[in-house]
Parts: sequence; C-alpha cells; structure tokens
Amino acid sequence: MNILLTNDDGIHAEGLWALKKALSGKHTTTVVAPDMERSAVGHSITLIHPLRVNRIQTNGGWGHAVSGTPADCVKLAVLEILETRPDMVVSGINPGPNVGINLNYSGTVSAAKEAVLMGIPAIAISQNRNPDNEYGVAANFVGILIAKITENGLPAGTFLNVNIPACPRDEIEGIRITRQGISRLKEIFYRRTDPRSQTYYWQGSETQFFDHDPDTDGAVLCRNYISITPVQCDMTDYQAIEHLKSWDIHLNV
Amino acid sequence: MNILLTNDDGIHAEGLWALKKALSGKHTTTVVAPDMERSAVGHSITLIHPLRVNRIQTNGGWGHAVSGTPADCVKLAVLEILETRPDMVVSGINPGPNVGINLNYSGTVSAAKEAVLMGIPAIAISQNRNPDNEYGVAANFVGILIAKITENGLPAGTFLNVNIPACPRDEIEGIRITRQGISRLKEIFYRRTDPRSQTYYWQGSETQFFDHDPDTDGAVLCRNYISITPVQCDMTDYQAIEHLKSWDIHLNV
Repeated sequence: MNILLTNDDGIHAEGLWALKKALSGKHTTTVVAPDMERSAVGHSITLIHPLRVNRIQTNGGWGHAVSGTPADCVKLAVLEILETRPDMVVSGINPGPNVGINLNYSGTVSAAKEAVLMGIPAIAISQNRNPDNEYGVAANFVGILIAKITENGLPAGTFLNVNIPACPRDEIEGIRITRQGISRLKEIFYRRTDPRSQTYYWQGSETQFFDHDPDTDGAVLCRNYISITPVQCDMTDYQAIEHLKSWDIHLNV
Repeated sequence: MNILLTNDDGIHAEGLWALKKALSGKHTTTVVAPDMERSAVGHSITLIHPLRVNRIQTNGGWGHAVSGTPADCVKLAVLEILETRPDMVVSGINPGPNVGINLNYSGTVSAAKEAVLMGIPAIAISQNRNPDNEYGVAANFVGILIAKITENGLPAGTFLNVNIPACPRDEIEGIRITRQGISRLKEIFYRRTDPRSQTYYWQGSETQFFDHDPDTDGAVLCRNYISITPVQCDMTDYQAIEHLKSWDIHLNV
C-alpha cells in the first residue's frame, strides 16, 4: 500500500521515523510533515500565507517539510506532492496521550481527520509518555491495524484514534475499543510581567484528569490497555434535532 | 444575562459589533476577540507563545483584543479577563457561511465549541454573503435564540451552529433544524514562483459544493432558510464500536 505519514511534532520527531521504519518493509511510505512543532493547532489550515515545501534528509530518511499545519500537510501531499493518491494516512507517533477533550486541540488527530474528509482511511497514533520514548510497540501495532483495516474496512467518515499505554510491552493488559471521554487538562494561565513591565499570559496545564467511566479512552490507558476509539467527522447532535424542532422558533418575536 | 462575544475575524470586524449592538439592550455583553483575523484556525490554541490582552475602543465600543485564536479568547476570557463566568458565549457574526465540512476549519465554530467544553451554552452565527454586509437580521435572531435557549435549555456538550441566508429579510423562507452536510469547497493549491525563483503554494478554493440532501445546513441555506444545526463535542462513532470489537485485534500478529 501507499501510506502517507505525517504528525504535529514536526518532521524531525522520532515518533514519525519509528513509524517509517516499522511500515517501510511491507508498504511504500512517504513523509510529509510540518517543518517545526505544530502542537495544539487543531484543524487549523493556512490561508493567509503561502506554504513552502522542502525535501530534506533527517533521521536517516527523506521527507517533505511543509511550512504549515498537519491538515495543510495532508491536503498538500494529496493534491500536489504525491504522484499517487495514498491508500492510507497515519499521523504520529505523538509523544503523550491524545484522549478526552484534547482530541479537539490535537494536530495529530486533525491530520487523520483531514485524510478522512478527503476520503482516505486514517489512523492517529499516540504513545502515553514512557521514560525511554520507546516507539517500537506503537509503530508495530500500527502495522497490525493497517492489516485489519484492509481486511475489514472502516465506515466512511470515520478514523481510528489509538493510544498506547506508558508501560513496557509485556505489561500491556490488552486492547480496548473505547469512546472519547471527558478527561481534560486543568487549564491555567500564568500571568507574568515582561522586561518592559507589560503583562502577558502563558497558557499551561496541570495534571490531566481522567474519567471515572471505565470504558473511555483515558480510563483504559491508565489501566495499561491500548485504546482504540472510532472517531467520526459528522458533528451533528441527532438527538437534539427533535428537541429543537419542538422549540417553535420564529423570525418575529 | 452576562454574554461573552467573540469571533474569528478579529475585534474590528463589523459582524461582532452588530451583535454587541443588538444584545446590549437586554444583556450585559463583553467583547474578547482576536486582535487580527484568525480565519480557518479551527480549534487551535496557543501554547508556545505568550498571549497579550489590550483593552481597546473600536466600532464605538470597548473590547479586549487578544493576540491569539478564538479558542484562546474564550479560555482567557473565562479564566482571567471576566469577573463573572458568562452565562452564554456567542461567536460571530461570520461574513460567509459555516456549513458542511467547513465546520472543522472554522474559528467561529471552534470558539462556540470551546465554550461548551467549558460548560457554557454557546451559539456560532454566520451570515451567508449578502451584498451590503447587512448583519441586523442575524444579530436580532441571536437575541431570539438566546431567549429560546434560556427557556428550553440545550443538551450538555451541544451548541447551535446558525447560518443566515444571503437574501433580504422579507425573502427568508423560514427556519430549519438541520444536520451538518458534506458540502465543501473545491480546494486547490496555486503553485507559483517567488521573486527569488523559489516555488510556493497558496491554498485557495473554488465554488462551494452544497449537498443534494435537502435537510442539510448548506442545502436549506441555498433555499433561503435559516439553518440551525445542533453540534455535539463527543466525536465517538458509537456505531463503529461494535464493528471494531468483532475485529479480534491482538498485539501479537
């Protein structure tokens, strides 16, 4: 298969090249990734600036470095850079989990979503922080998932968001199909004063709160399971449609 | 009520101040908006730079100009700028529709989503392009919706994405509760050469394709109806969960 690899940590990030190494035996892989870290850019795309693409060598391989966001990378790869439309897009491996409401902010996840919006199956893969930044288990697991997707197919408009727990391989308890939870970072703004005595705010976060619900992405990850969440692009709240129809809204008060 | 107003077109944009004008009679409104245009930034948040806030006067009123994204504005307003937690957040009025897959890229929509993630009811409001950039109908309609939300409530985790058609008020056919369609822009990259003979790509788009399904946001807008779509934050594809469970995935091949 032709597989497009991207991420939000930038083209030099280790996790991206661990994927390239693990998948290149069986597949043709192409790296098109941001030229620098673009964490938390969500589904941002670049409209008011031009984009540059440089083919560079890093981590022992060649890739296309794009001066844009993960979603830009996927669009540009499919529409301009690649000669053949990719059969699949893999985004990651992100160092740190992408669970709960953080899916909204994650560039890793948005790259996979962009692929699905373009009609290409996709996986977003994240590794909960482990001491050695060891990506081998995650990278090999993506290979297993690619085979399963090829065999079974995914619903149109849906991709897989995968998180690998922060433990050695032999301590992984198993694999769980999960729903997106509501775990979130406790957000804080550090209010400080610059050398010119002007106030600035720097956004940070404290400990991540995971759900109590045991079937969510964050909760199974904490119990050393691999979490696989099917994520859909349709944002409609169908249950609310009937509720709203009963409101009897008019243009005149 | 205390209402926070924001947008993605920046604090000087007319649509924002049309909202302020229409809502300030009945409500206490505060403007916290990006200091410049931040279209298509999606749910991007600013982590690697500090944020600045300046209280400025524009369009005949005072507001807080933030050097960040719409989602940053909502977070910073709620956590730092406002003395009282807002009862509602309204984002807009965006000049141009926010329908179909463009909800993913829209900063207007992401500001409303950020509010709901923080537990605050929210409305995203967009005006399909009309010749005079006339925002009066849209702004007044938000007032009507706020009253309806106060009366009926919205499901937790859901906000309203509202689009007003590009026709005079007396040609509006009515109001429809819709689902998010798959209408999209035909994306193209313009490949050009800069004065130093280097290639650059500039992302653009051609005509918007609307759905054939008559019940979608884009389709009703084209028929001169106001579209109201309930949008949920939960991204899980619940139907796919059972499908995936049948895959029998293992860590060992």
